Amino acid sequence: MSADTVRRSVVLRRRPSGAPDGSDFDIIEDAVPTPGAHEVVTRTIWLSIDPYMRGRLREQQTYAKAIEIGEVMTGETVGEVIASAAPGLAVGDIVVGARGWQTHVLSNAAQLTKVDRPTADRPAPPISTWLGVLGMPGATAYTGVTDILKPKAGETVVVSAASGAVGSVAGQLAKRAGARVVGVAGGAEKCLYVQDALSFDDCVDHRSIDLGAELAASCPNGIDCYFENVGGAVQAAVFDLLNPFARVAMCGMVSQYNQDPFPPGPNLGFVVGKRVLIEGFIVSDKPERIAEWRKLAAPWVAEGSLEYREDEIDGLENAPDALGGILGGRNFGKLLVRVGPDSH
Amino acid sequence: MSADTVRRSVVLRRRPSGAPDGSDFDIIEDAVPTPGAHEVVTRTIWLSIDPYMRGRLREQQTYAKAIEIGEVMTGETVGEVIASAAPGLAVGDIVVGARGWQTHVLSNAAQLTKVDRPTADRPAPPISTWLGVLGMPGATAYTGVTDILKPKAGETVVVSAASGAVGSVAGQLAKRAGARVVGVAGGAEKCLYVQDALSFDDCVDHRSIDLGAELAASCPNGIDCYFENVGGAVQAAVFDLLNPFARVAMCGMVSQYNQDPFPPGPNLGFVVGKRVLIEGFIVSDKPERIAEWRKLAAPWVAEGSLEYREDEIDGLENAPDALGGILGGRNFGKLLVRVGPDSH
Repeated sequence: MSADTVRRSVVLRRRPSGAPDGSDFDIIEDAVPTPGAHEVVTRTIWLSIDPYMRGRLREQQTYAKAIEIGEVMTGETVGEVIASAAPGLAVGDIVVGARGWQTHVLSNAAQLTKVDRPTADRPAPPISTWLGVLGMPGATAYTGVTDILKPKAGETVVVSAASGAVGSVAGQLAKRAGARVVGVAGGAEKCLYVQDALSFDDCVDHRSIDLGAELAASCPNGIDCYFENVGGAVQAAVFDLLNPFARVAMCGMVSQYNQDPFPPGPNLGFVVGKRVLIEGFIVSDKPERIAEWRKLAAPWVAEGSLEYREDEIDGLENAPDALGGILGGRNFGKLLVRVGPDSH
Repeated sequence: MSADTVRRSVVLRRRPSGAPDGSDFDIIEDAVPTPGAHEVVTRTIWLSIDPYMRGRLREQQTYAKAIEIGEVMTGETVGEVIASAAPGLAVGDIVVGARGWQTHVLSNAAQLTKVDRPTADRPAPPISTWLGVLGMPGATAYTGVTDILKPKAGETVVVSAASGAVGSVAGQLAKRAGARVVGVAGGAEKCLYVQDALSFDDCVDHRSIDLGAELAASCPNGIDCYFENVGGAVQAAVFDLLNPFARVAMCGMVSQYNQDPFPPGPNLGFVVGKRVLIEGFIVSDKPERIAEWRKLAAPWVAEGSLEYREDEIDGLENAPDALGGILGGRNFGKLLVRVGPDSH
């Protein structure tokens, strides 16, 4: 085990117009820092790439601070503690929660959650899953389904970006509640995965010539719940089919994150007549939901009863292109950048 | 007291395009009916004119049946019982709840609520108020404020169509909850009324050259709650100023009821970032709210602590034009048609 001395960080060079790529960022090097009291330094193994990150690159922010020019890009990681000045965390521990597109992250220990490595005699979820199915995306799905959609047995639930990190969990939770679940995804391969691996009742390709007609055919009893990840044409098609007293959990509108200005939306007259509830939410408002979800779902992941898929991209320097791709649906499951090996 | 023998009814001649007027309806005459078991016949004194009625004239309905060609137009009335075959209701009783643009209405007694006439030694709300401030419009305001907006002391609440039957009550309820209340109304006269008589903290004229700037000036701390009655440009201006965790009670979008098709609406990206709740509601889904509201507010009306205003139009034959006018904001307060005298 050789001591790390050089840290690489991805910093914002300029605010991207449209899809971000490597030319919008610089990679800088400095020395691996030394932890102060209650701090630890982690060596990053996995970096999470999520659609919300595109929003952080806009100057105008609604609920978080913008990343400044020259600032390290934000993102959650799983890493191994290589230096600790915090009681309770030791070198070699695996932790989730350190933030930054960096090979080495200096964190306050209070931000970190220690997780187990799976071993031959102790089953545990793979460490990457704490960023996806057991991380923010999974907890987001859990929050939207539990607090807003509240699907009942027999109701029809539509989930957009259905093969993705959030949508795949949202749909499986709605299935567990006894609902009929219809996914919307981009392309035949994703739709097959949504039906075959995730066991949704049906899946509609949003690239269909007549999305509205296909969705109507897949939802003969209308739509009672919509887990919204994409916006745009999919949103319009779903809204046309909402039943009275439908609930819409507004998680994201990824189809427009590269657009500026945003296009007009739906006329909201139907919200009155159909008594629809539309509610936006962000999982970080309810941190207790993440702990709750991890406790609930870790056994499901360990035993294999909750399906998930991860897409791996190698190398910190490829993180900007990965972010550009996620907004166009280039990835399939939870998108992760491998920054370092699992162990030395 | 002469016995009534001829009944006049307003029936739909054709579906209006744009604002309805008298040419869209016929007036027909027949004999005043005789009540069957559990039925009563009332002589209509007041007929309520409400924006929702425009929706009933469209072929496509979301939550109620369309009025058919040749069918009597629907609307709530206050009337005097002139014939009864129902226990508990006697000739001379004043009742609210009989429905129809008619001089005489045949009703099942179960639909009717007996109300007191005010007398010199027994204060009671004027009988017309059971259609407005103490009727469906008042209960609508109560439901939207109580179940959706839930304004807290110090929050900013915006109410559109603020001088109207619903908006005037919604704003006064938000004031009672300790909120800062800003109305939006059409024209200086209505705005003065909203500020002076209804005691809202401010009122913005939606005909202003720069509605957004005026609204922003009136809401320096942003907008926490919006009671939506009008849609269109007012909705867009309010949505731009919503605070995180804002609530929007979608009661109506009267500015577009004469439009077909409806114009596009707002891009809903802000709903996610600001965690906004947008919820449509219709008071008739919760009939218990009407009874609750009447019990709560009747003393306020009798004692004069709840302000209201009624606009009176004379004659059943003028009801179609009254409906055309309400959608353009021609009326000021609760719009009523006087169909017959208070007493013979």
